[in-house]
Amino acid sequence: MRMSNMLIATLREVPAEAEIASHQLMLRAGLIRKMSSGIYNHLPLGVKVLKNVEEIIREEMEAKGAQELLCSAIIPAELWQESGRWDAYGAEMFRVKDRGNRDYCLGPTHEEVFTSTVKNEIKSYKQLPINLYQIQTKYRDERRPRFGVMRSREFIMKDAYSFDKDQEGLDIAFNKMHDAYVNIFNRCGLDAKCVEADSGAIGGSNSAEFMVKSEVGEDDIVFCTACDYAANIEKAEAIAEKAEEEALQEMKKVETPNSRTIEEVSEFLNVDTKKTVKTLLYNVDGKTVAVLVRGDREVNEVKVANASNATGDIELASHEQVMEATNAQTGFAGPVGIKVDLLLVDEEVKNMHNIIVGANETGYHLTGVNYGRDFEGVVGDFRNVEEGEKCPKCGGKITIAKGTEVGHIFKLGTKYSESMNAKFIDENGKEQPFIMGCYGIGVTRTVASIIEQHHDENGIIWPLEVAPYKVSVIAVNSKDEEQMKIAEEIYNNLRSLGLDVLFDDRKERAGVKFKDAELMGIPMRVVVGKKITDGEVEFRLRTSSDNEIIKIDEVEGRIRTEFEKNGLKLR
Amino acid sequence: MRMSNMLIATLREVPAEAEIASHQLMLRAGLIRKMSSGIYNHLPLGVKVLKNVEEIIREEMEAKGAQELLCSAIIPAELWQESGRWDAYGAEMFRVKDRGNRDYCLGPTHEEVFTSTVKNEIKSYKQLPINLYQIQTKYRDERRPRFGVMRSREFIMKDAYSFDKDQEGLDIAFNKMHDAYVNIFNRCGLDAKCVEADSGAIGGSNSAEFMVKSEVGEDDIVFCTACDYAANIEKAEAIAEKAEEEALQEMKKVETPNSRTIEEVSEFLNVDTKKTVKTLLYNVDGKTVAVLVRGDREVNEVKVANASNATGDIELASHEQVMEATNAQTGFAGPVGIKVDLLLVDEEVKNMHNIIVGANETGYHLTGVNYGRDFEGVVGDFRNVEEGEKCPKCGGKITIAKGTEVGHIFKLGTKYSESMNAKFIDENGKEQPFIMGCYGIGVTRTVASIIEQHHDENGIIWPLEVAPYKVSVIAVNSKDEEQMKIAEEIYNNLRSLGLDVLFDDRKERAGVKFKDAELMGIPMRVVVGKKITDGEVEFRLRTSSDNEIIKIDEVEGRIRTEFEKNGLKLR
Repeated sequence: MRMSNMLIATLREVPAEAEIASHQLMLRAGLIRKMSSGIYNHLPLGVKVLKNVEEIIREEMEAKGAQELLCSAIIPAELWQESGRWDAYGAEMFRVKDRGNRDYCLGPTHEEVFTSTVKNEIKSYKQLPINLYQIQTKYRDERRPRFGVMRSREFIMKDAYSFDKDQEGLDIAFNKMHDAYVNIFNRCGLDAKCVEADSGAIGGSNSAEFMVKSEVGEDDIVFCTACDYAANIEKAEAIAEKAEEEALQEMKKVETPNSRTIEEVSEFLNVDTKKTVKTLLYNVDGKTVAVLVRGDREVNEVKVANASNATGDIELASHEQVMEATNAQTGFAGPVGIKVDLLLVDEEVKNMHNIIVGANETGYHLTGVNYGRDFEGVVGDFRNVEEGEKCPKCGGKITIAKGTEVGHIFKLGTKYSESMNAKFIDENGKEQPFIMGCYGIGVTRTVASIIEQHHDENGIIWPLEVAPYKVSVIAVNSKDEEQMKIAEEIYNNLRSLGLDVLFDDRKERAGVKFKDAELMGIPMRVVVGKKITDGEVEFRLRTSSDNEIIKIDEVEGRIRTEFEKNGLKLR
Repeated sequence: MRMSNMLIATLREVPAEAEIASHQLMLRAGLIRKMSSGIYNHLPLGVKVLKNVEEIIREEMEAKGAQELLCSAIIPAELWQESGRWDAYGAEMFRVKDRGNRDYCLGPTHEEVFTSTVKNEIKSYKQLPINLYQIQTKYRDERRPRFGVMRSREFIMKDAYSFDKDQEGLDIAFNKMHDAYVNIFNRCGLDAKCVEADSGAIGGSNSAEFMVKSEVGEDDIVFCTACDYAANIEKAEAIAEKAEEEALQEMKKVETPNSRTIEEVSEFLNVDTKKTVKTLLYNVDGKTVAVLVRGDREVNEVKVANASNATGDIELASHEQVMEATNAQTGFAGPVGIKVDLLLVDEEVKNMHNIIVGANETGYHLTGVNYGRDFEGVVGDFRNVEEGEKCPKCGGKITIAKGTEVGHIFKLGTKYSESMNAKFIDENGKEQPFIMGCYGIGVTRTVASIIEQHHDENGIIWPLEVAPYKVSVIAVNSKDEEQMKIAEEIYNNLRSLGLDVLFDDRKERAGVKFKDAELMGIPMRVVVGKKITDGEVEFRLRTSSDNEIIKIDEVEGRIRTEFEKNGLKLR
């Protein structure tokens, strides 16, 4: 591409709207522009990167035998009613009516559509296994779109769905997708870690997320510093501390006026927060669920939701619900005599002695309370793991980092095939529901994540395979005919190798050209300057600050070397 | 692709829902499935063809210097309010509200978005010309979706928009796009004819459509049998017949009870319909417009709309409007004494003598009426051309055929840049509106049109470049190990050439395999059967019914020959 003909949309200033590096650089390098809140248009440079990432995904998916479909974004409500998700999906789903007043949504995901397609097309176990995918636009009306395309309302996703006749088949499909994702993110130059994730009611190791460490990530990822254990904090198993033995005290009611929070109560009674237990009340599908964790711990709402079989998100109980369960103002709830539908007790709490809890009476707490003697409940793991705790796998030390999810692989089992009555005939002539898996990659988000991991103060530093252009050819002085002629020859030669090359033929100062090439993150640059009188040009990698002086006829070879280093072929 | 692993969705029966060949074959060969009225999912075979067509479009667009963007499908209402089209677009536009109750549409086209983008990015004439395109999903809530993807509500379109500093630049851009379209449709194997089309208020030869002749086409295309004249009937110029000289009669009112239509009046008065004139009344943006054409002619509503500066579609006047204009029941309107906002007279009517028209009185007509003496109006071309008339260009004979529009190129001028205040600074430092063109190709419709032109009773016959797979390798007896081994070797060898090949390794009868390959339209097939004992296989083109017996080691060469014949390269 000759830059004199190109829509160059680089910006020198950092746009005020952008908080994070990838968002700033996607705007500054001219990859995207905002259309509306959480809705972006891709400019030419952005489209080229998207297409490169899509091509990598396609190749790796097809290498695992997946076949590409393309489904409509508009989906009739009936399909979602069949699966029961039309009402459950809530405000995040864009809904639309046609001229006949029929209900549709803009697909936020396509489980229903793929299940229905396979239900119609596949009748026999002989046609299984099958894995179908698409690279397609998704719609989610996020409450809080942010960070550019990192969390947007219209975005490109690769979603795949596997259909098997049995659990073994699903396991194979799941592992294949795991391997494909490892390859995809490697080729994208992304350091993405596969971590255990929550799989809701299905349980087991059925869900894994590919996470990119990022300071602006919205998830907390738990890593072991000693072994390879890694899990989303939603899922990460907490090991209950054993409390030291001590003599059981008598339970006593003490006045704690105006002390509602753990901190206030600990201070008022002059005890460590670790001796207190907090009782949180949740509204789960209309029922009241109480959760007890040690005073200094955090409740893990996903674990609570799973333990209480919630159909959707759970929320803290209303003031009225608290009053009803405890006969007291908020801040004085405790397990003794509480009226709830379910009482969940974190294992750590069960191990503690002589704990301090709310008295279910405004202005009062109980001391010397003990599990078993004074109250009982469903014991389990209901809290978040914390930095420095023990790894559930090896006992090593846990560390926690922020992460962004770029991929998700999930064993669905028969959730959709059962609800949508999608069945095949097995070897014995019996109807069986398809055993399904689903596998997503956020394509637009992957691009942003690559930039998060590959940039410096001057701009993007594209990994070679996803780079929109691989080489930038720059004539230092565009008025120098000889420089322009040689630059053009190099450009034409590189293009003839099937390479995406930029030729900066603009009548701009060399400094402007260098700055744009760096901002756009072009991996290699060839600078044609005064040294051509000696038959030499400058070659520089975007990752380096060193100029290599090479002969003009060495340019192709030098570029070939970089391709080989990256495991890529040039024509 | 090994067919044993493939989602094969071929159907033996012709689906009842499909009326036309392409729709039937896209269903039968397993390219598409219906999701909802006018909304389709593409199955793997369909996706492959789409991608091939898209790739051709991309290459030809980029060869003309166009750059690819990717804009959101969701577009905020404000942009459409700026251009004035939010209200004008009517029921065909899908509208959607987000959780904040803000208005958006699902883009039926993207003039507003591209104009706004260029307005923000391009400031100077130095950055012009520029041509930006996208291949993207469009939404139009058609009143009557039909013929499968031929007229659907969600479809893929290539839309491009050119921005120039002056009219000469636009002319160049328009011609480049014309040439690109010729190349695109040629490579798709489509016989698409470029015809003059209506360009609304802008006028001139500013709009051209690429039309595919088709019995099920929704447009009438006017061709000259002698020269290269071709136009959409909406646009095609009608040459007014000169009437023979005759003495002017006196105007007389005659009773014509129950005679309302031209046929009834002609019969009642025993005259040729060519002596009568029909007066049709239209509602144009609330105003009443009367149009006079010879009794046997058809009014051209596009010409009427243009002449009356209609902002949108026009419709026949209501009974109340007719009563108000004529003081009579419908069927008795005429030009003498009619009360309308505009009276349009087809040139042919002006030339006629002693015509018969409605008397604007229920039950009466006038005879001996003459233009100039008895009534006057705006004279022009307001009728449809008819088969056998004279070509406006060379005087040759006109013929009319049905056609389907697959592409449209259009000089917009400053329509959008003016209304959206999109301006650049010209050579003299003055602000000027961009001079725009827009250029569309219906991608999904192009695929259907290719099938309309390339099929037989056994299935699709893909032109080589768009074919989802180029060759099908079939072992006659899948239980014969030697046949399977050689078939597999041929398959692997052809794949190593970078070729999309199908290997029918299914345990099916040979007849089933042949039928599927023909239905899917695979251009070449290699049949491995008993002749392998002589080192021979059968080669057959989908376009032929002859089997060529060739040596196994001649297969590659034979296929190379076909590629060369089609101007294509093989690795």
